Amino acid sequence: MTSTCQFSELPLAIEGIRLASIAANIRYKDRDDLCLVELADGATVAGVYTLNAFCAAPVHVCKKHMASEQVRFWLINAGNANAGTGEKGMHNALRSCQSVAEIAQCSPQQVMPFSTGVIGEQLKVEQIEQALPELFSALSANGWERAANTIMTTDTQQKLASVELTTSKGSVRITGMAKGSGMIKPNMATMLGYLATDAIISQADLQAALLQACNHSFNRITVDGDTSTNDSVVIAATGASKVELKQGSEDWAIFVDGLTQLSQELAHKIVRDGEGATKFIEIEVSEGGSRDECLEVAYSLAHSPLVKTALYASDPNWGRILMAVGKANVVDFDLSKVSIQIGDVALIKHGEPESSYTEEQGQKVFDQSDIRIAVQLGRGSCSETVWTCDFSHEYVTINAKYRS
Amino acid sequence: MTSTCQFSELPLAIEGIRLASIAANIRYKDRDDLCLVELADGATVAGVYTLNAFCAAPVHVCKKHMASEQVRFWLINAGNANAGTGEKGMHNALRSCQSVAEIAQCSPQQVMPFSTGVIGEQLKVEQIEQALPELFSALSANGWERAANTIMTTDTQQKLASVELTTSKGSVRITGMAKGSGMIKPNMATMLGYLATDAIISQADLQAALLQACNHSFNRITVDGDTSTNDSVVIAATGASKVELKQGSEDWAIFVDGLTQLSQELAHKIVRDGEGATKFIEIEVSEGGSRDECLEVAYSLAHSPLVKTALYASDPNWGRILMAVGKANVVDFDLSKVSIQIGDVALIKHGEPESSYTEEQGQKVFDQSDIRIAVQLGRGSCSETVWTCDFSHEYVTINAKYRS
Repeated sequence: MTSTCQFSELPLAIEGIRLASIAANIRYKDRDDLCLVELADGATVAGVYTLNAFCAAPVHVCKKHMASEQVRFWLINAGNANAGTGEKGMHNALRSCQSVAEIAQCSPQQVMPFSTGVIGEQLKVEQIEQALPELFSALSANGWERAANTIMTTDTQQKLASVELTTSKGSVRITGMAKGSGMIKPNMATMLGYLATDAIISQADLQAALLQACNHSFNRITVDGDTSTNDSVVIAATGASKVELKQGSEDWAIFVDGLTQLSQELAHKIVRDGEGATKFIEIEVSEGGSRDECLEVAYSLAHSPLVKTALYASDPNWGRILMAVGKANVVDFDLSKVSIQIGDVALIKHGEPESSYTEEQGQKVFDQSDIRIAVQLGRGSCSETVWTCDFSHEYVTINAKYRS
Repeated sequence: MTSTCQFSELPLAIEGIRLASIAANIRYKDRDDLCLVELADGATVAGVYTLNAFCAAPVHVCKKHMASEQVRFWLINAGNANAGTGEKGMHNALRSCQSVAEIAQCSPQQVMPFSTGVIGEQLKVEQIEQALPELFSALSANGWERAANTIMTTDTQQKLASVELTTSKGSVRITGMAKGSGMIKPNMATMLGYLATDAIISQADLQAALLQACNHSFNRITVDGDTSTNDSVVIAATGASKVELKQGSEDWAIFVDGLTQLSQELAHKIVRDGEGATKFIEIEVSEGGSRDECLEVAYSLAHSPLVKTALYASDPNWGRILMAVGKANVVDFDLSKVSIQIGDVALIKHGEPESSYTEEQGQKVFDQSDIRIAVQLGRGSCSETVWTCDFSHEYVTINAKYRS
């Protein structure tokens, strides 16, 4: 059987999507910080957003505009999050939509604004307005790579991926870009992700596919346990391939699987580029009584500063893994049923230290740059996987110096 | 009105309590690492213990021995936590009690063992046994100061405090020592705390007083959100003062208040000496609908690596405070009712940024070494206060190098 999902080395253009980037001097000097994405007339759009109660002005506007009109533009700035900016921030987000709409001769509700960067400062909306005419003239189907660089803040690597899917009705493409390297514990979506496909998909189906893909990718990664005020992942389906996909069909499973793989690829890139990250950690918790308790244990490990600094130091101080599992808030937690492995090495079997374990074995696993921790709870048949990174001096340096 | 609670500069001896310390080479070279505390015959003892499901062998033994017999000895070692050590660890904890009992000619159940240090290594119980005779011969009422140094691990400062209380029946004393500087997010008690009073108090009343004091001190501090497998706070009442205190009396309120003040003093010393700590942070969340939701918001702030690194950098990046309040898991969280201040500077009033706020004001607060963050939720009349520290390069260094 040939694979129905092929990753592409280079970003694949999506017919019906054009992108442009420019240096608008919003915060950074001499680098692109403003990106415009044009969606074909008739494209459907779905989105998932941060659950932070202090969500940013552009997130409020995005939700409203996505629900009210057929979206034609995504406007994304880096350097300023337009969060914690009160009424003026809301005014600025709406004004940037208005400015795009005036040039494009569409309704302001057809524009979705996104911002990422420092919280609590007012957006220089005049800089954005000045840059818009040049941005419009630069729109190109081949703008993905530059756009993926434009939306970065503390990221050191662009996050970009493309897949080609083989369905019974023909092939469809999905291309996506993402950004984010700190304040990453998405409860709903990672900081920012932009996905597009040339399939024909209804808005409701597209929303269902996005949610499912996010729950196995962007919603399962954590760098520092902090949830951004601006987290958003959106997807557009342009229909240019003429391949129509609907929930329930066999082709639908191919699409959701492809979208999930693409989203995982982007999510893993975010973790690998996590602020100060030197290691990529996969944590699988299985045999849980519920998915929630698997996640509770997984995040207890993924957020423990002591586990993360031990991973950074390549120090197989597995007692900290024990501590982090044990402190998880699980009702009637019976440790005598719990087993734990790091890599292919058994640490704990049914609550007792594995007698065959040696420090040498542990060291071998911890010396690797990709480390897997597996925990079996012995309570049921649910499982969850989350991905995280280690906690380094560099994390502190980056976050102590972020605004200076 | 004169104060009923006077802190003493020097540790006050408690009649009926004798302590001794020795270098037993359990892990450290050439420093005290083993401490014996002798309690007078007839002393009552109360204790609170870690909620970590992987609790250490000595904690299991402590709970059992405290419940079964009149306790005569506390045996405390630093350098090895005897946690994650399975059946052999339990055997070693019991064997150390047996060895104390043989010398003292009491029952092993009259000995409570405590361990702190590295998790997952077997305790060198022979080293303890060899040291016991010398330890017994060194018991002294004036051993508090040396004992407070003996029980330290990554601590850089001893934690020791004494109060003298004036009751209607005469004066009573409380002296206490504690240790802990990482893995501090007590759900039940801090790493280790040993308190003693010369009052006459029943076991049930002593347990009630200890719980109340802990819930306003040791149970409200956090360094890194990690809960130790060994957390324990115990108190002994020797009765030597002949002053009898009972729940419900006016003198009882004086005692509980004094015990709470002493416990807060020790808890604050732990936070100030938190691993890598350069700042002391008090977080008060008020106007909550319940104490639990106040704690949820307070810990969301206290555990946020982004808030803690901003505090470390003296960077008034208050957007991170907003983010951390907003990500708290509070049902129907309406941000339009929330107000936030740092020091005496208003940041947010009923969900909107305070227009009078200037960066200069924020900088002035963040430049201080003691910083207070106050949040009003506008949902009710409950409040909670927690204490924490910042997150520095030094934290990562300490925890990356802990075992090397």
